[in-house]
Amino acid sequence: MQLTEKQPTHKEDHTLATRLTTEPVAQNISATERYLKIRSQTEALCAPLAVEDMGVQPMEGASPPKWHLAHTSWFFETFILKAFGADYQTFHPMFEHLFNSYYNGVGTPYPRAARGNLSRPTVAEVQAYRRHVDARMGDLLEVQGDNAEIRKRLDLGMNHEQQHQELILTDLKYNFGHNPLHPVYRSDLYRPAAGHAQELTFSSYAAGMTSVGATEDFCFDNELPRHPVYLGAFQLADRLITNAEYLAFIDDRGYHNVSHWLSDGWTCVGQQGWQAPLYWKLLDGSWCEYTLSGLKPLVANAPVTHVSGFEADAFARWAGARLPTEHEWERAAGEHSVSVFANLLEADYLHPQPAPTGAGVKQLFGDGWEWTSSSYGPYPGYRALAGTLGKFMASQLVLRGGSCATPRDHIRHSYRNFFYPPDRWQFSCIRLARDL
Amino acid sequence: MQLTEKQPTHKEDHTLATRLTTEPVAQNISATERYLKIRSQTEALCAPLAVEDMGVQPMEGASPPKWHLAHTSWFFETFILKAFGADYQTFHPMFEHLFNSYYNGVGTPYPRAARGNLSRPTVAEVQAYRRHVDARMGDLLEVQGDNAEIRKRLDLGMNHEQQHQELILTDLKYNFGHNPLHPVYRSDLYRPAAGHAQELTFSSYAAGMTSVGATEDFCFDNELPRHPVYLGAFQLADRLITNAEYLAFIDDRGYHNVSHWLSDGWTCVGQQGWQAPLYWKLLDGSWCEYTLSGLKPLVANAPVTHVSGFEADAFARWAGARLPTEHEWERAAGEHSVSVFANLLEADYLHPQPAPTGAGVKQLFGDGWEWTSSSYGPYPGYRALAGTLGKFMASQLVLRGGSCATPRDHIRHSYRNFFYPPDRWQFSCIRLARDL
Amino acid sequence: MQLTEKQPTHKEDHTLATRLTTEPVAQNISATERYLKIRSQTEALCAPLAVEDMGVQPMEGASPPKWHLAHTSWFFETFILKAFGADYQTFHPMFEHLFNSYYNGVGTPYPRAARGNLSRPTVAEVQAYRRHVDARMGDLLEVQGDNAEIRKRLDLGMNHEQQHQELILTDLKYNFGHNPLHPVYRSDLYRPAAGHAQELTFSSYAAGMTSVGATEDFCFDNELPRHPVYLGAFQLADRLITNAEYLAFIDDRGYHNVSHWLSDGWTCVGQQGWQAPLYWKLLDGSWCEYTLSGLKPLVANAPVTHVSGFEADAFARWAGARLPTEHEWERAAGEHSVSVFANLLEADYLHPQPAPTGAGVKQLFGDGWEWTSSSYGPYPGYRALAGTLGKFMASQLVLRGGSCATPRDHIRHSYRNFFYPPDRWQFSCIRLARDL
Amino acid sequence: MQLTEKQPTHKEDHTLATRLTTEPVAQNISATERYLKIRSQTEALCAPLAVEDMGVQPMEGASPPKWHLAHTSWFFETFILKAFGADYQTFHPMFEHLFNSYYNGVGTPYPRAARGNLSRPTVAEVQAYRRHVDARMGDLLEVQGDNAEIRKRLDLGMNHEQQHQELILTDLKYNFGHNPLHPVYRSDLYRPAAGHAQELTFSSYAAGMTSVGATEDFCFDNELPRHPVYLGAFQLADRLITNAEYLAFIDDRGYHNVSHWLSDGWTCVGQQGWQAPLYWKLLDGSWCEYTLSGLKPLVANAPVTHVSGFEADAFARWAGARLPTEHEWERAAGEHSVSVFANLLEADYLHPQPAPTGAGVKQLFGDGWEWTSSSYGPYPGYRALAGTLGKFMASQLVLRGGSCATPRDHIRHSYRNFFYPPDRWQFSCIRLARDL
Repeated sequence: MQLTEKQPTHKEDHTLATRLTTEPVAQNISATERYLKIRSQTEALCAPLAVEDMGVQPMEGASPPKWHLAHTSWFFETFILKAFGADYQTFHPMFEHLFNSYYNGVGTPYPRAARGNLSRPTVAEVQAYRRHVDARMGDLLEVQGDNAEIRKRLDLGMNHEQQHQELILTDLKYNFGHNPLHPVYRSDLYRPAAGHAQELTFSSYAAGMTSVGATEDFCFDNELPRHPVYLGAFQLADRLITNAEYLAFIDDRGYHNVSHWLSDGWTCVGQQGWQAPLYWKLLDGSWCEYTLSGLKPLVANAPVTHVSGFEADAFARWAGARLPTEHEWERAAGEHSVSVFANLLEADYLHPQPAPTGAGVKQLFGDGWEWTSSSYGPYPGYRALAGTLGKFMASQLVLRGGSCATPRDHIRHSYRNFFYPPDRWQFSCIRLARDL
Repeated sequence: MQLTEKQPTHKEDHTLATRLTTEPVAQNISATERYLKIRSQTEALCAPLAVEDMGVQPMEGASPPKWHLAHTSWFFETFILKAFGADYQTFHPMFEHLFNSYYNGVGTPYPRAARGNLSRPTVAEVQAYRRHVDARMGDLLEVQGDNAEIRKRLDLGMNHEQQHQELILTDLKYNFGHNPLHPVYRSDLYRPAAGHAQELTFSSYAAGMTSVGATEDFCFDNELPRHPVYLGAFQLADRLITNAEYLAFIDDRGYHNVSHWLSDGWTCVGQQGWQAPLYWKLLDGSWCEYTLSGLKPLVANAPVTHVSGFEADAFARWAGARLPTEHEWERAAGEHSVSVFANLLEADYLHPQPAPTGAGVKQLFGDGWEWTSSSYGPYPGYRALAGTLGKFMASQLVLRGGSCATPRDHIRHSYRNFFYPPDRWQFSCIRLARDL
Repeated sequence: MQLTEKQPTHKEDHTLATRLTTEPVAQNISATERYLKIRSQTEALCAPLAVEDMGVQPMEGASPPKWHLAHTSWFFETFILKAFGADYQTFHPMFEHLFNSYYNGVGTPYPRAARGNLSRPTVAEVQAYRRHVDARMGDLLEVQGDNAEIRKRLDLGMNHEQQHQELILTDLKYNFGHNPLHPVYRSDLYRPAAGHAQELTFSSYAAGMTSVGATEDFCFDNELPRHPVYLGAFQLADRLITNAEYLAFIDDRGYHNVSHWLSDGWTCVGQQGWQAPLYWKLLDGSWCEYTLSGLKPLVANAPVTHVSGFEADAFARWAGARLPTEHEWERAAGEHSVSVFANLLEADYLHPQPAPTGAGVKQLFGDGWEWTSSSYGPYPGYRALAGTLGKFMASQLVLRGGSCATPRDHIRHSYRNFFYPPDRWQFSCIRLARDL
Repeated sequence: MQLTEKQPTHKEDHTLATRLTTEPVAQNISATERYLKIRSQTEALCAPLAVEDMGVQPMEGASPPKWHLAHTSWFFETFILKAFGADYQTFHPMFEHLFNSYYNGVGTPYPRAARGNLSRPTVAEVQAYRRHVDARMGDLLEVQGDNAEIRKRLDLGMNHEQQHQELILTDLKYNFGHNPLHPVYRSDLYRPAAGHAQELTFSSYAAGMTSVGATEDFCFDNELPRHPVYLGAFQLADRLITNAEYLAFIDDRGYHNVSHWLSDGWTCVGQQGWQAPLYWKLLDGSWCEYTLSGLKPLVANAPVTHVSGFEADAFARWAGARLPTEHEWERAAGEHSVSVFANLLEADYLHPQPAPTGAGVKQLFGDGWEWTSSSYGPYPGYRALAGTLGKFMASQLVLRGGSCATPRDHIRHSYRNFFYPPDRWQFSCIRLARDL
């Protein structure tokens, strides 16, 4: 098996290649330039929104765009400006309370579930807050830009902001996708022609030792330490499961047959009344899907997305396969990360796209986060960054590979995302694995 | 007892009298003029708000201002324009679903608890909806303005809109009052000087027959039929209970002594953690109260407001008294309604004010809705308007007299408002009664 | 209209008359004899039960028989033996905690919802507790039996025990009625032959003053003070609504038509999935009803029972009528109470029976508690017994007349029972009223 | 490090060794003998109980002893007697509904949460059911005892019954432990003298490959397939954490310091109000612990038990260590299983005991189930038995080693028990691990 074939190639996709309007953030620019670029990218994502859209929290887990704008600024204010800025004046004394989402032992953060009630501060006030933080950050970096601890926190803050870029899109989609008017975020997003997907094939991996964990300069603490693991022989599907394939599961009464489901998943199906992925709607007998371009006919050969971990697992069992472990996924992804043309945020589809043709494992990066069967826990020998304890939760699953809403320079082969098995509002997809 | 002394007089209150900026809607103007005046009054109430404030629903019962603007328009559109307008074109086919709060057997209204998630339609779109409806209503009234059924529905629609005017203010207050920034709705609202209230006295009413129910041209169906009732001798307090008096209840550990409370009320105290009225806050050892002018020191001689029916009942029992029945209240209010200078919406305080001095029963109208001990049910011989069934609920109490947020020509001596005993977000106050 | 005709007569019902096995407790016996008779009556109700049946609490509101046995003993122990018994030794120090259902400011009563978890004390231990209390009560009454306060508390305790006699039967029925084995409490209960009920007629009452409230020596505090009320002219149905009549409501899709229902009732129908009265079951296309004799075919002309206040109200509206107020009911019941042959506990049917034929209002006492439209509140001038505050709850309705499980000398024309509108596990029935 | 030292030795514990009253079930007896021995062992566990204790379900997860008695019989009836017994007559047609806890696509099992409401069938009827099943099983085994499929199902059924033996004890303990009377299950259970535990030491294990999974004839499907895993170097504590050590965590305000806790665990602490392990009570300033012998002073050097997975994890983090993975535990346990003198069910303590002295890893088997950090999922290559799908749940943790309530011939080195991280009612204990 040639691991070099593993990356999605998309090389033929000239249409895609030529319409990249947002350049990936280059690595050779100055820290300040990179900071400002990422900050403006966040704001660009909000540009198509009405003021009204900025404040809505359609469920506890989906914060308002305005809150994301303020919270990411609070991060830089708290961990850099207050810590290192001489005579730094807080923008507003109450913002610490309103926009802190961390346990910190000092006071009580504003209740997460009530973020959508904060009509004040207004959007204009939050934008003023951002400009204030950006100006002070510029001043500080000019003077102390070489301070190693500041550089470390700056990297962390920028990656943190990129995480919230993705959440702005998925939280907004949850809002719009539940509005009976089916609002359009952007009507200019590219929609592929329908067509048949290549038949599902699998690549094989021999049993043996492999190493997992971060190899790059920047990573989150949950990717460390890099360490060896033994993997039995396995196969990994060469592409993501398509809407057409998932529809066969539905048509086979997959949601009504307990034998496909984990116990907790079956309970979830009953309680939530699941009959299809999150944004699917049956209109006049035809399946449609809400996308950020509005309600559209389902594209048969595009990846099924917005499925829960329970649905991914049940589909896999129905299909005679299973979900990969996160280590299997990482072995397939190799030590290098992402090709230029993966369907990540900068590709500007904002929706998973049909797999390119050709041999080998495709779509490992971008398109949609891939559910694994691995429970989210610390790696052996893990050392937490001070103040970040508690992030390993006992009942979440790891997802890998990034999605169409993940910034290109944010994703890595060792990147571990994590959500609860019932969660469906991320761009989450299915890749199958099998024992050999 | 002189019933002629019963009305609040406020006559000395020249300051109040001269600053009435909003004229009560005159009765001698044309139907169209009155319609437009009430419609613009609703919009005037929203004028001080930011766009962000228009969409927030801080609890299920408190709808966003934008929803109120749309819902009241939907009422005219549905019951007049669609019913009587030749060739009337619906403004938007989905607004029926979004802005209907009635059971109608056709489809399912949009879930009440999710109104705050509707970032679309935008405020501007809702305003366009209002202009559309107003224009078509003008056209229709010009031609069919003498149609008796249309006039009847027009009256109903205008009174319905006035109900929502009050809700716009109380729902907004709930939103702002729970925002840690304590936003100010209007800073120009008059605030009275502190001072001692006149000692609490009672007026006496002999036992005997009395008649209750509507005497005026327009009323809601729950005020009919007017009918006789027998009342034992009773006394009614001459003014509302003040903040100072309620504070004495708190200081006497009123919230911690089960013997003052109804069983369900005691359960409520425990579950909700009540320690004081809704908007009271203890800051540095001093009680403050959130008002539409922001957080202000508590005014000792102003009426306590935003208390639940359970708190009103417990206070009364602690005070060796009881709440009046709705019939006792109505007997005291007499057959005529409201004096010119009562503290209603047009007085433009938007907060209960200290009682005027002088003999007799004061503050019956305006200032705050007065909890009664009467369960909300139909009068003997009640006939429901078609389609309004179901409004009599089994576990609500009647409140009487209107508040500082009630339009002057909306309130009557026979007017029956109704809320659940735990509800606190209306301008609800306490008047005591006693057996003789 | 002849008020003298209003009582149920049952005179022709020789079968019933001759099979009275349990004599009503005579008034001319000594206090001790009466005490012991009532105590043994309680135990006789438990005689048909297995030990296993004694501990089950099938819902929070339905306590285990064993708890009733202990709680009623705790009442005598606490309010008489501890208060008046020289050197009285408590049977067990923890029973105060386990079997007290009152707020008393001292400690926390054992959680009501967990009574079914108390496998200890055993039934035998509770019976020993009863014998201990009875022996001490005998000693005390021998010496202090003329003490007026003791006599008063004794009366209260005996009436309290009678209330729990009824609850033992209804709580047990709830348990058995939800067991898929449909256990039989007693197979020897008389079952009437089917037959058609007399057509529903109404008696008329002219408008005028009437007095309501207790006239007898013993009553509960909620029946006082007796006081005058004015009633408009009304009509009262001459008998209870039958199963056949209620079936017509069901067949007319009464549970699916919102226009019959109070708002809260409609919500209840949806949440609870009500399709019929509590113990009705459709077996092979025929309606059956769980009774204390097991699952039986529905008797068409017997009263419908185990309906909620919401269902009673909806049925009445569907039928073009309404529920009576409690005062209307009491006017019809007159100042005297119950005839010898009413279907009360001693009639030993333990199920509502078809109305006797003949003119006039029948079934006012016994058969089933009759839902009224009256909210349960204190009478004007009410004075609570010390320690009994809190029993007036804000959202319960009054029921009148007693049921087939009410001891004969417990019920009165002024007796006010009260339950929440959704409650269905009592023998609750429907009598219609109309305005004239 | 000598792996041969890993087993608990208890050899010195003559007191323990000599008081074994219940012989482990020998392997060389006939299938019928073994079946009857296990069946009677189940009943022996219920012998000290009152009839009242047999029906109580103190929480949804803790079924009544009577239900366990019936459910285990239902297992043999359904999977052996109905499947293989010629002309087998079902004992009662409704028992399938009442005592089936499996999804089977046919009908709906009786609601788990309502098992405590089933006062019928009575205990005597359930015992008759057991006798019926045992008699028919004897007949069947006499004729078809060599049938391989029957033998397989018989093994499964006996192991299933042993699982329920442990649950009878832990469910009963939950009931008694929440009864204010603190009932005693058996007063004759041995209680060790207090004393200091040996200092906590760790055994070291070098990095390398190891194999995990079943090696014995009988195992559950979740122990297969046996497969290789790579483990980094680690250390494992030589004994379980003691009450004294856990008390130090409490005294250090471990329950009040968020930094020790997983996010979900911290939420749990707040919601449940945890301040100590499940059965600890502070009486007059001294810690006591409810045991099956009643409320007893805490034994300092006995293992802390009845802690949740969250508490175990938080303690480990506080102690600068971590929980072991299930594979680390299994490596330490080796391929052989349990020594004769481990504190398992037959040792008849029914409570974890202080570790024996001496070198090496002790208490691996018995005393208490040991929480691991491993999420409960299928092994690579897992093949489910037909009909047992759905047992792998997404959010449970694996526990290893058995407890003082586990039958000796039920536990194995490869045995995987699993509970949710908040669960505390099993005999669950803490063993620490560390990275090397």
